[in-house]
Amino acid sequence: MDFAFDSVTEDLRERLLRFMDECVYPAEAAFEEQAATSGWSPPPLLDDLKDEARKRGLWNLFLPGDHGAGLTNLQYAPLAEIMGRSPSIAPVATNCAAPDTGNMELLAMFGSEWQRKEWLQPLLDGEIRSAFAMTEPDVASSDATNIATSIVRDGDEYVINGRKWFISGAMNPNCKILIVMGKTNPDAPKHRQQSMILVPRDTPGVHIKRGMHVFGYTDADHGGHAEILFEDVRVPAENLIGEEGGGFAIAQARLGPGRIHHCMRLIGMAERAVELMCRRALARTTFGRPVAEQGVVQDWIAESRIRIEQSRLLVLKTAWLMDTVGNQGAHTEIQAIKISTPITVEWILDKAVQVHGAGGVSQDFPLAALWAGARSLRLADGPDEVHKRSLAYRELKRYM
Amino acid sequence: MDFAFDSVTEDLRERLLRFMDECVYPAEAAFEEQAATSGWSPPPLLDDLKDEARKRGLWNLFLPGDHGAGLTNLQYAPLAEIMGRSPSIAPVATNCAAPDTGNMELLAMFGSEWQRKEWLQPLLDGEIRSAFAMTEPDVASSDATNIATSIVRDGDEYVINGRKWFISGAMNPNCKILIVMGKTNPDAPKHRQQSMILVPRDTPGVHIKRGMHVFGYTDADHGGHAEILFEDVRVPAENLIGEEGGGFAIAQARLGPGRIHHCMRLIGMAERAVELMCRRALARTTFGRPVAEQGVVQDWIAESRIRIEQSRLLVLKTAWLMDTVGNQGAHTEIQAIKISTPITVEWILDKAVQVHGAGGVSQDFPLAALWAGARSLRLADGPDEVHKRSLAYRELKRYM
Amino acid sequence: MDFAFDSVTEDLRERLLRFMDECVYPAEAAFEEQAATSGWSPPPLLDDLKDEARKRGLWNLFLPGDHGAGLTNLQYAPLAEIMGRSPSIAPVATNCAAPDTGNMELLAMFGSEWQRKEWLQPLLDGEIRSAFAMTEPDVASSDATNIATSIVRDGDEYVINGRKWFISGAMNPNCKILIVMGKTNPDAPKHRQQSMILVPRDTPGVHIKRGMHVFGYTDADHGGHAEILFEDVRVPAENLIGEEGGGFAIAQARLGPGRIHHCMRLIGMAERAVELMCRRALARTTFGRPVAEQGVVQDWIAESRIRIEQSRLLVLKTAWLMDTVGNQGAHTEIQAIKISTPITVEWILDKAVQVHGAGGVSQDFPLAALWAGARSLRLADGPDEVHKRSLAYRELKRYM
Amino acid sequence: MDFAFDSVTEDLRERLLRFMDECVYPAEAAFEEQAATSGWSPPPLLDDLKDEARKRGLWNLFLPGDHGAGLTNLQYAPLAEIMGRSPSIAPVATNCAAPDTGNMELLAMFGSEWQRKEWLQPLLDGEIRSAFAMTEPDVASSDATNIATSIVRDGDEYVINGRKWFISGAMNPNCKILIVMGKTNPDAPKHRQQSMILVPRDTPGVHIKRGMHVFGYTDADHGGHAEILFEDVRVPAENLIGEEGGGFAIAQARLGPGRIHHCMRLIGMAERAVELMCRRALARTTFGRPVAEQGVVQDWIAESRIRIEQSRLLVLKTAWLMDTVGNQGAHTEIQAIKISTPITVEWILDKAVQVHGAGGVSQDFPLAALWAGARSLRLADGPDEVHKRSLAYRELKRYM
Repeated sequence: MDFAFDSVTEDLRERLLRFMDECVYPAEAAFEEQAATSGWSPPPLLDDLKDEARKRGLWNLFLPGDHGAGLTNLQYAPLAEIMGRSPSIAPVATNCAAPDTGNMELLAMFGSEWQRKEWLQPLLDGEIRSAFAMTEPDVASSDATNIATSIVRDGDEYVINGRKWFISGAMNPNCKILIVMGKTNPDAPKHRQQSMILVPRDTPGVHIKRGMHVFGYTDADHGGHAEILFEDVRVPAENLIGEEGGGFAIAQARLGPGRIHHCMRLIGMAERAVELMCRRALARTTFGRPVAEQGVVQDWIAESRIRIEQSRLLVLKTAWLMDTVGNQGAHTEIQAIKISTPITVEWILDKAVQVHGAGGVSQDFPLAALWAGARSLRLADGPDEVHKRSLAYRELKRYM
Repeated sequence: MDFAFDSVTEDLRERLLRFMDECVYPAEAAFEEQAATSGWSPPPLLDDLKDEARKRGLWNLFLPGDHGAGLTNLQYAPLAEIMGRSPSIAPVATNCAAPDTGNMELLAMFGSEWQRKEWLQPLLDGEIRSAFAMTEPDVASSDATNIATSIVRDGDEYVINGRKWFISGAMNPNCKILIVMGKTNPDAPKHRQQSMILVPRDTPGVHIKRGMHVFGYTDADHGGHAEILFEDVRVPAENLIGEEGGGFAIAQARLGPGRIHHCMRLIGMAERAVELMCRRALARTTFGRPVAEQGVVQDWIAESRIRIEQSRLLVLKTAWLMDTVGNQGAHTEIQAIKISTPITVEWILDKAVQVHGAGGVSQDFPLAALWAGARSLRLADGPDEVHKRSLAYRELKRYM
Repeated sequence: MDFAFDSVTEDLRERLLRFMDECVYPAEAAFEEQAATSGWSPPPLLDDLKDEARKRGLWNLFLPGDHGAGLTNLQYAPLAEIMGRSPSIAPVATNCAAPDTGNMELLAMFGSEWQRKEWLQPLLDGEIRSAFAMTEPDVASSDATNIATSIVRDGDEYVINGRKWFISGAMNPNCKILIVMGKTNPDAPKHRQQSMILVPRDTPGVHIKRGMHVFGYTDADHGGHAEILFEDVRVPAENLIGEEGGGFAIAQARLGPGRIHHCMRLIGMAERAVELMCRRALARTTFGRPVAEQGVVQDWIAESRIRIEQSRLLVLKTAWLMDTVGNQGAHTEIQAIKISTPITVEWILDKAVQVHGAGGVSQDFPLAALWAGARSLRLADGPDEVHKRSLAYRELKRYM
Repeated sequence: MDFAFDSVTEDLRERLLRFMDECVYPAEAAFEEQAATSGWSPPPLLDDLKDEARKRGLWNLFLPGDHGAGLTNLQYAPLAEIMGRSPSIAPVATNCAAPDTGNMELLAMFGSEWQRKEWLQPLLDGEIRSAFAMTEPDVASSDATNIATSIVRDGDEYVINGRKWFISGAMNPNCKILIVMGKTNPDAPKHRQQSMILVPRDTPGVHIKRGMHVFGYTDADHGGHAEILFEDVRVPAENLIGEEGGGFAIAQARLGPGRIHHCMRLIGMAERAVELMCRRALARTTFGRPVAEQGVVQDWIAESRIRIEQSRLLVLKTAWLMDTVGNQGAHTEIQAIKISTPITVEWILDKAVQVHGAGGVSQDFPLAALWAGARSLRLADGPDEVHKRSLAYRELKRYM
């Protein structure tokens, strides 16, 4: 047992930290300004940052294997944490932003040669963005067998009908491709009914209806969260990813890395929040004493530090398990961090907001927006309660 | 001891409930639509609702004495709760919306005859709106002695310089008058330095800079939360409310009713949330069972019911104390409900959001917006922590 | 709506408070000393206190109707709270101690003339004690239909077989009578299978096996919590209370008042805890400052005050409902206080312990023992979780 | 970074697990029986277990260096966890029980050759027990500068006067030696006033007054928690450990390992609790369903699993830091686990109790007693609040 990072990780951490200091944090104010007027498109300054990151060798760090930087999960995790300290900029600048990351992994693993050339390559190059269309408004989507969108074979084509929402990134005009989950085989066994299919966003019948809000935020700077109606959408049969009925298995494979990336970034957000909380508490005075001397605020700071340390370690161990025994072997731990990290970070952000007074809930600090992001992760990809039940079953099984 | 409402209250409750059913709830969808395009102005349908409410005798219910409906706090409390079930519409429709309510009480109690005629009357008639300019961005405003805005006598005028923010309602073009708190006597004893003064919103030097956000919400439909720069703003000396140095005392007098109104409305929001939570839980199915049969959801519903009952009773008792021993005598209880109600209702709203899945955080249900409102009340008018400390001191004093 | 006590209550409160000050608190130290050597019998000083209380007209206050003081629940509630401040002494001294209170009510309501003469009278006179034998070790007794003890008619007698535990008070040699719940009609509908029967503690076949502990406490001073084996125990048929199959209904009738008395006493304990916490915080100094100036301790004090006020009001309203609409009509509220009061008071006691340092967990302060009592009430008479589920069902039903 | 145990650890874990299965768990029932009648002495069966453990090479595992097994903290931690699963037996059986462990480390590090021969050797051999006398009833002992016991040089002797309490193990007649903290130099700088001195328990003037209770438990089987009066107690000058004024530094050095051992054992207790909770939930049925199918119980199980994983990892990382950068470098983490582990495990034990119903609070399951132990660790060695403040200061300092 050893808690030190290896040298590859240390080297990349240093370079990434320098990139944050030299390029990312200094761009935050301008990013917000540009975001205020750039509609559903990303602020243009991101292009320069992407060039810079690529030049510095900080590109596609998330992707194992030949297509990307070839890091293990354990090596990537602390880098994702650092990116999470400025989560609107750093992940995009390094081409490590969701949902592209998950989509690229999916295509690298399950895509045909043609699919990889057509869609994976421009994603790897940071030229286009993508979206993952799973959640539906009319059913509890945490139970994937509820998915109602239909994908019907018709000659050389598939015809797609259904309604999706909270499709992150899909409002962005540069989002060129959607990976859509739907049912091809409604009569097959429960977990063999679903398939995934590639649908170019400009295919006739794809109606981008509106952007969903998250606690008032449109998240326009990273392409919002679209509601999309698929009305007799036709794509060539070769757009199907993998085989008919393989959608559920692909979705499962996609989840592990996606969840751990989210958790690592959340921990970076929490670190940012603690820094802001401390700085504010030291700078403000009430009733004749700095806020930093108030016992309750000290309690929050101490609790935040402890909870961050515990959360980070469990995420890192999960990464190690994924690397050593595979995503399936790390199932319990992946679920554990999916449940515990968002609510922990939400708590820390709430306290940081409170220390900032009215400013904390406003656009003048990143805290409220980060909070909304953390809060929504308690729901995204299935509410915590569903995951807790499943985790409990596995625990109980040991004694059956 | 008797827990039944008196007949005046019962009668008004019935009429108000009918108004909600017949006029308010049916207008909610159209309100949201109008709000999306009406900028900082209130949705126009409110005008009809105001006429209707006035016709039904549901007008200025909040205001004791001759100027208003003449109810006690205990009589008004359950009415405010009902209004809170649709908090964007009902309070405005009945001319019982903050911050006008507090401002009207203030003018009724402390305004000169001229001030009452000029500003109180149009407020009572629902013709104009008003704002209360207290919080400043540069100091911890929970400690009123930190207030830095200066109000300097110059001949027959006062000259005002300072910066305020989170001035609720002040983005609304129909907000005609600001009550501004500042320092007239910086060398007087700590609680005799402040004064309040009436500043028409269109006075030269009043610069409305921007609307502050509350989590992603601008709250444009009720006039937002303005940042305002006062630059050499000159108003006649007769605009001063009460006497020089009386500002702190007036602020204190304004707080009691303001807080209890907020709390009652919050309880109405909580009731709405429980209703939505139950309906959703009954309507959705996951893993073969209605969500309503999940033990954790049942636990949330039970806890919500219990917490609402407890919170409501403490608010009602506080109202009774204000009526029987005065706001000063009810100080502990006012503080207690100010601390406990927002965080309780926030908890309930959070659970209702969770039961709604992704929809819960979105614009399709009122829950996320209500949550942001409840959350910000943990900060508004001083963070909870300041009030807890003060409450603890009073408890400790009993044993000194 | 009126939050003032009526004059009967005010008068009794004053007299009871005087009795506490003059007789109960001064006896606490001696009580502990006697308890250390009196085995399963109550400390002898209680006899004098009982005489004194009776002389002062502070006797059987809990009992409505002609047999007792004839108070309503709402009148008795604040008196029970006061008794709860010294819960080992005051309730016994005033003949208002569980489980006798519930047993006396039960006999007053459902007992035959003979049963009332034989058992109710000496209980009313404080000459004997009694126990209520419901919980069984081998089944989840919160589900009364699980009860396995059998009561079989055999000629003029009933024969009882079964095992009970946590039978409070039954270790006390002066406990003369047991009310036993068992099944007479195993083939009847679910809630018509049970009966209650009077079993003198010295009946052959009644084996008092041992005293159960509660977090290390034997509670010997109030008769412990016995495990009892009933082996072919024979009692005359006239010992049956009410009719065969009526046991479940009688148990339900007994629960309402029992629960509310527990809750009121718990609130008295909480008040005692806050007093001790404040006194200790004022008396101790760490790192150069009185503990009372530590922000976290102030937070606990404030929270305790708020939670006590809310809890008390809900208990009082429940009492009022029981008086005005009956126990059945107050079902939701009785369940609500059963769930919320113990856990609230447990929290307060935990904080008071913490402020007392190592002394807090010891025999030198009453806090740890009170904590154990409060904690066990989260389980007694069904774990909270069972009650929450039932409360949630009623809430959900409103929207079905 | 690597989360696998090394081979030394794996080997010892296996052997220890076998010892638990073959010797410890099977002895638990008999241990309780013997404990009920053995007064303040340990149950005699421990002697055989000690022989067996020693034979199996499972002896003094806690002690680094030549005197003991020579393991690192990181190697010992998972072994301590396993012992914690049966905390009354396993640590004593393997001579790894507090407070001997800390005392042995202290003597190994700071004892003179004579002291080591006289007291360390019989402790290492498991022939005698020891106690550590720090806490005083009259001052807040978490602030070591409050310690009031005096140690005054008088010729070749030191004279000790003072009162201590909660001196764990000191009621045991086989506890032969006390390490006493007191003030030798009251006029020196604050942290140079204290010294530690060896006091044989049978020295004249050492009055063992009584055993303190912990929530009703006397903890007699491991020697209770004594209140001790030191009245003109005279010991030879050579009994002083280290130098005059060195007591504070020695105390600090003793704390690190002591705390981490406690935390590891707590995690073992938590694992035991989860196992019991699961087994019970699977075995009991209420309202027609196994308790294990209740959503709230599943939630507790899932939360328990997650919290255990997080807690364990932070303890292990702390052990690694102690090994790699020293106790001083691991200060923050040691404090973090001291704060977070007891309250986490207390929570888990509380839920396990709840699942066991009335049995959970009783002597029939180990849960209530384990709870009392965990609860008291929130106070032992300074209440959590003191440690949180200190941890917060270090966090704030990064931004000063």
